[in-house]
Amino acid sequence: MTAEQQLVDAALRAWKLNADRVEKFFVALSADQLQQEVAPGRNRLIYLWGHLAAVNDGLFPLLGIGPRLHPELDPTFLASPDRAVATLPSASELKDIAAEIDRELWKAFSRLSATDWIAKHTAVSDEDFVREPHRNRFSVLLSRTSHMSFHHGQAILAKPRA
Amino acid sequence: MTAEQQLVDAALRAWKLNADRVEKFFVALSADQLQQEVAPGRNRLIYLWGHLAAVNDGLFPLLGIGPRLHPELDPTFLASPDRAVATLPSASELKDIAAEIDRELWKAFSRLSATDWIAKHTAVSDEDFVREPHRNRFSVLLSRTSHMSFHHGQAILAKPRA
Repeated sequence: MTAEQQLVDAALRAWKLNADRVEKFFVALSADQLQQEVAPGRNRLIYLWGHLAAVNDGLFPLLGIGPRLHPELDPTFLASPDRAVATLPSASELKDIAAEIDRELWKAFSRLSATDWIAKHTAVSDEDFVREPHRNRFSVLLSRTSHMSFHHGQAILAKPRA
Repeated sequence: MTAEQQLVDAALRAWKLNADRVEKFFVALSADQLQQEVAPGRNRLIYLWGHLAAVNDGLFPLLGIGPRLHPELDPTFLASPDRAVATLPSASELKDIAAEIDRELWKAFSRLSATDWIAKHTAVSDEDFVREPHRNRFSVLLSRTSHMSFHHGQAILAKPRA
């Protein structure tokens, strides 16, 4: 592997590690456990799970690697805070949706070269990208990896301790 | 910038963004506020702050970029859970310690080339590194960036809401 391939490989491994941890955490919970709040008055686990799925699904258009798989998540998990929408997907639906997003993102990520990763993402204009070349796909990948970690740190607070 | 420089630059920006967020969050809190728990029975804010400082300080030897600046943090913030050690540094001491670690790490990071980043870290042997070339400095940087985000996500739960 070239140096640039090794750098990309490290970031993809970091993504995968975090995505797998998140999936493993939520999949193990019962429908009742998913109703727990991470702290008093804060988001419920099921909301965090749906929120992470919705944000990650947004990477398809943002990185220009495909259409959204589940845009129906957004009104509930992105545009609204927890509890604003009464009807959420079931634990089993969310499990399938999140797994599909993870799987298809991973396939799409694996097809991108280092040159693709440092190319601009779709939310920046050609003009702005000349001035701000750091607004590239790779930065988005790193930022969404941190985003998973941010909410995973919250989610474990609700987990019943041994 | 070459492709590899751009990839490193993106990761350094992600590090800095998270380090700055963490510093800004904790520095704004009073000594009383730092005694708050992130959730009932969980870590206090002051413990998380010291824990992040200790873990980040560990990057000097782990990346082979210098000696520890504050090894005295470890018994309290790494080897022990919160409340196991009665006497903690004051908010003002911790502020100076954390700022110094951040500043010196940033200087050291800025001196490393892409080739340096994909070289092995000090916790892996030459022999293992041949088989596992992903155990490099860059992976450590990404993992410690996620670690900050993980605990930052927890810390904001304790912050009094507006």
